[in-house]
Amino acid sequence: MSLLTIGTVAFDDIETPFGKAEKAIGGACTYASYAASYFTDNIRLCSIVGADFPMDEIKALENRGVDMEGLQIKQDGLTFFWAGKYHKNMNQRDTIATDLNVLDDFDPVLPESYKSSKYVMLGNLTPEIQMQVINQLDGSQKLVVLDTMNFWMDIAMDSLLEVIAKVDVITINDEEARQLSGEYSLVNAASKIHKMGPKYVIIKKGEHGALLFSEGEIFSAPALPLAQVFDPTGAGDTFAGGFIGYLAHSEDISFENMKRAIMYGSCMASFCVEEFSIEKLRNLSNDDIVERMGQFKSMTHFEL
Amino acid sequence: MSLLTIGTVAFDDIETPFGKAEKAIGGACTYASYAASYFTDNIRLCSIVGADFPMDEIKALENRGVDMEGLQIKQDGLTFFWAGKYHKNMNQRDTIATDLNVLDDFDPVLPESYKSSKYVMLGNLTPEIQMQVINQLDGSQKLVVLDTMNFWMDIAMDSLLEVIAKVDVITINDEEARQLSGEYSLVNAASKIHKMGPKYVIIKKGEHGALLFSEGEIFSAPALPLAQVFDPTGAGDTFAGGFIGYLAHSEDISFENMKRAIMYGSCMASFCVEEFSIEKLRNLSNDDIVERMGQFKSMTHFEL
Repeated sequence: MSLLTIGTVAFDDIETPFGKAEKAIGGACTYASYAASYFTDNIRLCSIVGADFPMDEIKALENRGVDMEGLQIKQDGLTFFWAGKYHKNMNQRDTIATDLNVLDDFDPVLPESYKSSKYVMLGNLTPEIQMQVINQLDGSQKLVVLDTMNFWMDIAMDSLLEVIAKVDVITINDEEARQLSGEYSLVNAASKIHKMGPKYVIIKKGEHGALLFSEGEIFSAPALPLAQVFDPTGAGDTFAGGFIGYLAHSEDISFENMKRAIMYGSCMASFCVEEFSIEKLRNLSNDDIVERMGQFKSMTHFEL
Repeated sequence: MSLLTIGTVAFDDIETPFGKAEKAIGGACTYASYAASYFTDNIRLCSIVGADFPMDEIKALENRGVDMEGLQIKQDGLTFFWAGKYHKNMNQRDTIATDLNVLDDFDPVLPESYKSSKYVMLGNLTPEIQMQVINQLDGSQKLVVLDTMNFWMDIAMDSLLEVIAKVDVITINDEEARQLSGEYSLVNAASKIHKMGPKYVIIKKGEHGALLFSEGEIFSAPALPLAQVFDPTGAGDTFAGGFIGYLAHSEDISFENMKRAIMYGSCMASFCVEEFSIEKLRNLSNDDIVERMGQFKSMTHFEL
């Protein structure tokens, strides 16, 4: 099934306790597309970069089956740039720089062939841009997934709520779920967010995994405890990409299948953090994924 | 199989966003014994109280099959008292008062019949007292579980390390595991703690569940997301009591069975926090436990 991913394609400067990377390839759309590419073909990417973005990286995504027709290349612009520093506690980071560059006046024009994409991943962007994408879709979508963050809750809550009302799944972290709902308990938070629109609420908890809520049902996916988290950048986007990529592949949006999809998302995120940037996501084998899913299963299953 | 529980029996003043309880029944040994009593008979309690402790509460434990011969009642003393206040984030609390009272010169003398207990739960106490108990055991034990906390790491690390070297299982929270090992990654922390003695390391993460580590194997148990956590006091002790109670009942200390035991521990902890003090643990039915374990199973299981 066809999958549309929108979001940033970026350069990142990253510093972690384990080292530094400069002008590394990043962006929500990049991570999500790489992760999804292990499950489904027919991925369409919509984003914007400047002329400074390497053609090799565009080709690398194409080689993983990602249609790049929707990638705007602005010849007189620079690619979106983010710089961040992680401390020992990898759950927290300082943003050192955010240069919007070409993102500043991004007008997400969907190629005609994208408009009937059955699965849509709306990566973190301004709610206005996310809504512009929704408005171009032809209405035949099976599942629209939204990722957003506290920044938009702070400065554009009304627009964000309009977007939230239009989507089937929202992925946010625990603090964002509390901010959005005004509820401390994640059960109550999810319940209030359901009423805003999304049938499924996914609450990401970093090293503590993720929770999926739908109509009174709960599924809890752990993160894989790792000896070394090298670089957490993009883990949430990779998680979302693995999740929707698996759904697009299996064409089954039942709660039971969403459980599997969440686990595949966690699996892809566990790879993502093992190296800087998207490096680990470039060349995974099917065996790598099967083996790691086995680890997740033995780590969570018990018989009564 | 016989189970020995040692630790505090206490009065607690508790304040949470949902209300207050004064002179509520508390203490690690109390919570652990109640939780274990749903799985096994032949529980032996070793602790100390003052003459102010209600006889009814001693009888209530006896009625749940707990042998109280090892409870010292100091006629001229007052029961250990703790007062604490929880804020909206129930993972953190302020200690308002800690009156050691009779605990100040507690000499844990085990009745002769206790010394051959096959399962032993060493609840949080000074490492010296925990070692005195270990030294009275007859050496026929199948499993000794230790609970401790950062306070003893701060002021009595050498004594604590001697106790840790003697036990099979240690239960501590994530920050304590980091403090004890000097490792940030919980995988590396568990690995270092294994080398100190315990074959099994259980890292408690409050609302995020618990991790069990043994010789390269990992099991991740979630906590049950609840609409309302009424009072988290004793949740860790209840978890430990359910864990060792189930093991004492099943007489199987394989990793596979430990997984089940951890889930039963999480299950009992999920009940504990639903009411103040030990109230919810007084009268659970087998059906309550079976139903909740079903919730845990559907919340964690997926098919590939």
